[in-house]
Amino acid sequence: MAAKHKKKSESSPHASQSVTQLLRLPSGPVDLSKLDTASTPGYPGEGKQDAPALTQALGPEISDLQERLYANGRSAPEQAPRLLVLLQGMDTSGKGGVIRNAMGMVDPQGIQLTSFKAPTDEERKHHYLWRIKKALPDPGMVGIFDRSQYEDVLVVRVEQLVPVSEWNKRYDEINALEKKITDEGTTMIKCFLHVSFEEQKARLAARLSSPEKYWKYNPGDVDARAKWPAYQQAYADALERCNTDHAPWFVVPADRKWYRNWAVAQLLREHLIGLDLSWPEATFDVAAEKARVAKA
Amino acid sequence: MAAKHKKKSESSPHASQSVTQLLRLPSGPVDLSKLDTASTPGYPGEGKQDAPALTQALGPEISDLQERLYANGRSAPEQAPRLLVLLQGMDTSGKGGVIRNAMGMVDPQGIQLTSFKAPTDEERKHHYLWRIKKALPDPGMVGIFDRSQYEDVLVVRVEQLVPVSEWNKRYDEINALEKKITDEGTTMIKCFLHVSFEEQKARLAARLSSPEKYWKYNPGDVDARAKWPAYQQAYADALERCNTDHAPWFVVPADRKWYRNWAVAQLLREHLIGLDLSWPEATFDVAAEKARVAKA
Repeated sequence: MAAKHKKKSESSPHASQSVTQLLRLPSGPVDLSKLDTASTPGYPGEGKQDAPALTQALGPEISDLQERLYANGRSAPEQAPRLLVLLQGMDTSGKGGVIRNAMGMVDPQGIQLTSFKAPTDEERKHHYLWRIKKALPDPGMVGIFDRSQYEDVLVVRVEQLVPVSEWNKRYDEINALEKKITDEGTTMIKCFLHVSFEEQKARLAARLSSPEKYWKYNPGDVDARAKWPAYQQAYADALERCNTDHAPWFVVPADRKWYRNWAVAQLLREHLIGLDLSWPEATFDVAAEKARVAKA
Repeated sequence: MAAKHKKKSESSPHASQSVTQLLRLPSGPVDLSKLDTASTPGYPGEGKQDAPALTQALGPEISDLQERLYANGRSAPEQAPRLLVLLQGMDTSGKGGVIRNAMGMVDPQGIQLTSFKAPTDEERKHHYLWRIKKALPDPGMVGIFDRSQYEDVLVVRVEQLVPVSEWNKRYDEINALEKKITDEGTTMIKCFLHVSFEEQKARLAARLSSPEKYWKYNPGDVDARAKWPAYQQAYADALERCNTDHAPWFVVPADRKWYRNWAVAQLLREHLIGLDLSWPEATFDVAAEKARVAKA
């Protein structure tokens, strides 16, 4: 894995480190204002102009590795690993763009995508983790969470939808759930797409600048923006308190869309490599089946 | 639509006809042995070598058109159309390959994929169309059916899982369901991937030739192959009896994988163009929101 990565990024100033290492949030106190939103850690190109080619170039390898994962899920579901890409970030940080551009490189057959919105009436009747557990990826699959269990310590906290005593115990509950699912064979890639206050304003304005983008605009986003400091604090606490060895956070600088998309694709690639998968063994007698096909 | 298509395929011998027109099954009796499995109707290239570039070239337009569809689903779900790509074909005909290569060009957020396998215990308790209705695409979405309601007049008929009197009435029931869903705004693209008896043998043998492909091999496929004539007759009847104006069948020659993938991508493109969608209108006061963002 190290050798492969080195080859790919030898032109980078961080040639010796994977993007997984570079973006991993260090343990300890988190101050989001100290984490750069516009940097490009590990990016092997010169800038935006190289990004489409560099991102596209990851496609064939991601596709091959994901097919192995899927094949293991089909042939040996009992032992097959699972991958879960979890996306969080302020409005306009680009969760949708990442799914479209980075996750779009994966065969649709291998993806299980869930977008978590405000809970439905049905979901409200259950524990807040009920809908999360239902959406966990099957063996061999790449799950994608567009928002997640973290909304229950983010919007729920800032908008005071439950008492402090209620949301305050959720960090431990989330850690426990993540421990359980990673112990059971799911590798989590928790991505916080980190966008600046200024960039969010520019993106909201851009959505109002063209009829092609109106559908992405939600007046409620401006209301949430008014509570920016409270949301940043809620994010900082969620990142700090749920940054575990079994399910660490990756902070993806997201002011540059081209870097953000490349970086998440690269995280996916590196984690797929990390699974170190072989093609599954035949579940039938190959010689006997060859003879049957020859006669068929 | 015609003008746009003409521009794209002017090097084709069928430049005046869309792939939608070329692959549409004519009404009347169906004899599958008379329908070529290796031809390439409407293909604008010279052969296999051009296929990756020609198929990739469809990506940006499909992506743009699908985003419009999705945007309409988000902003105006009451009026937004839906698309349903239904894939049927003998084992090895390439349903999975089409999903991976053609449908893989669509944003995962805009896809609702359902693979219909042998019915589960839960599904067996219901009418055979119950699971189909549950999986129909939402407004603005591209549904993909990997197998479908047609299995209930194919495998069910050939394997005699229900009496003749039972499956024989299903053609009308399927037509009635398809009339209802197309009347309600779903455009169906029903694709029969037509592969030859010889090519199926070659593909089964190929799956046994390399450990990378073992996972795709299912010994049961050889059993089904022994009933080839019965399956072809069941397919012919399904195609003939369910080839309606509201939901016609497209017969995609599938012996050449590169043509098959290109052709389904092209069918998708042409049907998206046929929806003739504009970007949805703003559901808010644009000027007022611009002022709010400026101050936020």
